[in-house]
Amino acid sequence: MPSIKDVASLAGVGVGTVSRVINNHSNVTPESIKKVNDAIKQLNYIPNEVARNFKMQKSNMVALLLPSIWHPFFSEMAFYIEDQLDQHGYKLMLCNSGGRPDKEVYYLDMFYQNKVAGIIGLTYNDIEENVNTDIPFISIDRHIGTKITCVTSDNYEGGRMAVSELIKAGVKKAAYLGITSFGYSEVILRKNGFIDEANRHGIEHVTFEENSDVYNDDVFFEQFFEKHGDVDGIFANTDILAAKYIKKAREKGLKVPEDVKVIGYDGIQDNDLFHPILTTIRQPVEEMARMSVDLLLRKIEGEELEQMIYRVPIKYREGETT
Amino acid sequence: MPSIKDVASLAGVGVGTVSRVINNHSNVTPESIKKVNDAIKQLNYIPNEVARNFKMQKSNMVALLLPSIWHPFFSEMAFYIEDQLDQHGYKLMLCNSGGRPDKEVYYLDMFYQNKVAGIIGLTYNDIEENVNTDIPFISIDRHIGTKITCVTSDNYEGGRMAVSELIKAGVKKAAYLGITSFGYSEVILRKNGFIDEANRHGIEHVTFEENSDVYNDDVFFEQFFEKHGDVDGIFANTDILAAKYIKKAREKGLKVPEDVKVIGYDGIQDNDLFHPILTTIRQPVEEMARMSVDLLLRKIEGEELEQMIYRVPIKYREGETT
Repeated sequence: MPSIKDVASLAGVGVGTVSRVINNHSNVTPESIKKVNDAIKQLNYIPNEVARNFKMQKSNMVALLLPSIWHPFFSEMAFYIEDQLDQHGYKLMLCNSGGRPDKEVYYLDMFYQNKVAGIIGLTYNDIEENVNTDIPFISIDRHIGTKITCVTSDNYEGGRMAVSELIKAGVKKAAYLGITSFGYSEVILRKNGFIDEANRHGIEHVTFEENSDVYNDDVFFEQFFEKHGDVDGIFANTDILAAKYIKKAREKGLKVPEDVKVIGYDGIQDNDLFHPILTTIRQPVEEMARMSVDLLLRKIEGEELEQMIYRVPIKYREGETT
Repeated sequence: MPSIKDVASLAGVGVGTVSRVINNHSNVTPESIKKVNDAIKQLNYIPNEVARNFKMQKSNMVALLLPSIWHPFFSEMAFYIEDQLDQHGYKLMLCNSGGRPDKEVYYLDMFYQNKVAGIIGLTYNDIEENVNTDIPFISIDRHIGTKITCVTSDNYEGGRMAVSELIKAGVKKAAYLGITSFGYSEVILRKNGFIDEANRHGIEHVTFEENSDVYNDDVFFEQFFEKHGDVDGIFANTDILAAKYIKKAREKGLKVPEDVKVIGYDGIQDNDLFHPILTTIRQPVEEMARMSVDLLLRKIEGEELEQMIYRVPIKYREGETT
């Protein structure tokens, strides 16, 4: 396979000139451009990334596997991940799994076939046996096996903080509302933090959860109001669930925040144009994205990471619902 | 370079068996797996996509260039584009330009270097001279030169429909609010449709616009209310601009929809949890995404397309603001 040096030598110019011609830089004379292009043609030199990757057997493509880019939390995450990868010369391949395990496995196979440089995954299914640990993998919010580094927000502290803020707002009986997914996810720590802090303060509290596979809005809230109609404070494990609660509570004639205070988790609202503006535990999406990329690049370079789980501090953000 | 046939021949199996081993299919005997893997090792056969691409000099990567995946309109678009590409065996490379021309040009150069199979672009800057027509390109919402096919919603009809609905709702004086970008964008037809339909009905109307480079929320609306405080109907050229208007109008003591009716464009709200639910001209995002991919694939296969611009019908969607 001819090299860039062969091209330079045949064209009678320096390697830098060849590179400038290939990359369409402006400061090259028309003569040099012609000489280089003639040499490229004569040698059948292929100056593109595909050839480079083939030669070096490496790719600068990082795969991002997530349930759906259409969700505001994931699209914000993807935005920062792409930005950070680009700063390090990597590109982002976007893959929406729809949360379906078969599609997650399908994409993982595809990544191994294509020898991506690394993977950042937000997965919520039991795909542990399909994760090939030869390719650097960073999981967000989810432990997958013992070789996969996980980046997450400080979920436990978030749950703890939510209870503490509900109590400050005068809540006497608090409920944790959760939609849970298969397998162990870091998200469960939001509940643990909620329970521990409620116990520490000795306030009455309940937890109410449903698995995402069978979750249904109407059934979930109907049963919740039937069983726990007397709570005056809600910590929902996502902002969307908090907003759904508020809609259903209003239909029941409950006022938020007068009758019930509500705190969500994520911080998906990035403007003050749509209401209610949720009081929430804000995930540090930008920091999580940057940390995921930094750790992935360290893995790609062969470094051993010192931790299995990296937890990024969360922030309480007051809105209109407490 | 050894081929899959060489591997099959050395292993004493069929090419199909080699392919199944490479692709980790289940119906292969352990003996075959061993034989194939030994042959692969002995021949130093590289069965991955990088090698395949090198050989065929083609890539199955399509680049999506957009201002920011973090915007709900773009993330919905990206979701459907990725889904459609995946169904045809193509992958999506995601690139956020931040709307900056230098970054758009930088990404375009990168695409040409990497020989992507095609590009779907949502660009709002004057990058015409940087678009290399050797690579199939579909532009969404924007004409770029004479060789670039454009897919867009029926913006003119959207503007027309907005006025017609404002009139039905009782509006006597309507305003078009727009943030405009450099160069010719299809978005300008929203205004043309607005003007033509307002003239056709003979209702009083004004247009009020600012260029995105100098646009500032406070200044824009302060000047608008000063000059046109008497309008009772607004057609804003995006949903976000409509929502900003509503916020500012409420600060001025105006009630929506009682005092002023407001219609946006895009249809970014995909749930009824956050208010106001905007009355809007809904872009057919899924259809636009599918059409963009279909046209791109036809271009990749060397087909000549019959049109330069493909306009997809829009829909009026009533919310709480008219």
